Amino acid sequence: MKLFMLRTAVATPLRSIRRASFCSSTLKWEGGVSMVQGASRGIGFEFVRQLLEKNNKGHVIATCRNPDGATALLELKRKFEERLSILELDVTNENTIEASANFIRKRYGSLNLLINASGILSIPDVLQPETTLSKVQKSSLMYSFEINAVGPILVIKHMWPLLKLGGHSGAERDVAIVANLSARVGSIGDNHLGGWHSYRSSKAALNQLTKNISLEFARKKDPIICILLHPGTVETDLSRPFLRNVPKGKLFTTEFSVQKLLGIINNAKHNDNGKFFAWDGLEIRW
Amino acid sequence: MKLFMLRTAVATPLRSIRRASFCSSTLKWEGGVSMVQGASRGIGFEFVRQLLEKNNKGHVIATCRNPDGATALLELKRKFEERLSILELDVTNENTIEASANFIRKRYGSLNLLINASGILSIPDVLQPETTLSKVQKSSLMYSFEINAVGPILVIKHMWPLLKLGGHSGAERDVAIVANLSARVGSIGDNHLGGWHSYRSSKAALNQLTKNISLEFARKKDPIICILLHPGTVETDLSRPFLRNVPKGKLFTTEFSVQKLLGIINNAKHNDNGKFFAWDGLEIRW
Repeated sequence: MKLFMLRTAVATPLRSIRRASFCSSTLKWEGGVSMVQGASRGIGFEFVRQLLEKNNKGHVIATCRNPDGATALLELKRKFEERLSILELDVTNENTIEASANFIRKRYGSLNLLINASGILSIPDVLQPETTLSKVQKSSLMYSFEINAVGPILVIKHMWPLLKLGGHSGAERDVAIVANLSARVGSIGDNHLGGWHSYRSSKAALNQLTKNISLEFARKKDPIICILLHPGTVETDLSRPFLRNVPKGKLFTTEFSVQKLLGIINNAKHNDNGKFFAWDGLEIRW
Repeated sequence: MKLFMLRTAVATPLRSIRRASFCSSTLKWEGGVSMVQGASRGIGFEFVRQLLEKNNKGHVIATCRNPDGATALLELKRKFEERLSILELDVTNENTIEASANFIRKRYGSLNLLINASGILSIPDVLQPETTLSKVQKSSLMYSFEINAVGPILVIKHMWPLLKLGGHSGAERDVAIVANLSARVGSIGDNHLGGWHSYRSSKAALNQLTKNISLEFARKKDPIICILLHPGTVETDLSRPFLRNVPKGKLFTTEFSVQKLLGIINNAKHNDNGKFFAWDGLEIRW
């Protein structure tokens, strides 16, 4: 894996960075350390932007598959040189997840917030949201599951030790937060239309996996809360081909949606662990 | 794909079999045509046995990965030579699913009942139900999803035209039934323990996919009902390594469980389409 940082950041020798411990992470990283996985564009990018621009402190690690091509992140890096690190991470390649965890451990020592924002709905000529069972392909189901469900869970697996340290660090929050981007269409109980088999089933699987993990964290008294978020219908590269029938006023900008979602994240309580929230703060059934 | 039939059955030349049409299937296959996918042992085998032994008519197609090694099915075939066909079908190989559909179309012309009973929880030295996030492996998640969620859905996809014909045939039921074996641990809302990440998430995905399909069938007014079934905790090869803590009286024989599940199948109404039932007939939340 290639760790991608602009020249100025690379100039800080890793060996000079204080190693992880509760106190050092609290003192060193005022405002906390947040990681946004899937941050090159869309909702993930907007999370990075707001975390940097709406706070005057706090560090953000933005990960994406191809940092060299992440022009919006690179521009942000020029403005927030000290507070932003950009790492290469591909959820289909566990080595890149592990390498990111190693880098974060060495550089920051802990994580206070992890947002899994990567997700796949369609790829031109490869994966189309299914409109009927007869168009369901094994490859689409497997690929969606790998990216939308397995990927985020592997990221949490590798970041878990860092989140435990972050939750214990006594920063603004007394817990670390894991927020997985799900979608209302992943709800089985709320499914009245059908279609989009690969997307819907992979998000249902993500919901179950997140619930599972939240139960383990609670049982072990780890200071980590896991939540699932539905961002609303947001205009992004992911959703753009499918927005024809969205009523006026129901289509959000990434700015509006992420502002709402950050509100939910910032107000998350122990009691919210393992729950599935829409952008408006209302719980969504499974 | 090798179509496996005992000598006497093979002796019936395929070309002499009447081709599919509503009437021919009604007249020819008194008692209906049922397919049990994953029928070599456990709950799947017991479905085949009871469908044959508890009715004095009706035809059963039992599928499994390795008919040559399916000794219990082979024994049943000796007793119910005319009423039982055994086919090779591996849910991870879509060609075998398609070939089975072709065979059934030629030989029977329609299907009145499809039971997807195959499923994976553990494979010694390969796949173990996870007790903690730190043991979650990508390969286990992917493999469980492929077998427990994708496989049954591909089977339904290929049997769909046959089920439509079966549902229209005016046999005992005015609809065809698809019953997918799920499990209560696949319920997200009912998850209070965590663990078994691969199994739980693959069953949640199966639940979502089945719900999805049930909605399409209903919208198209196809005479097919899809239900999900939780068999209870049943002593089978799948469950045997994990039965230590099951309280007395809560561990069912396959005979008891399948008797209950066949009761649910036989009484299924249009209104049950897309629902998830436990062995006792009570609905399970998602």
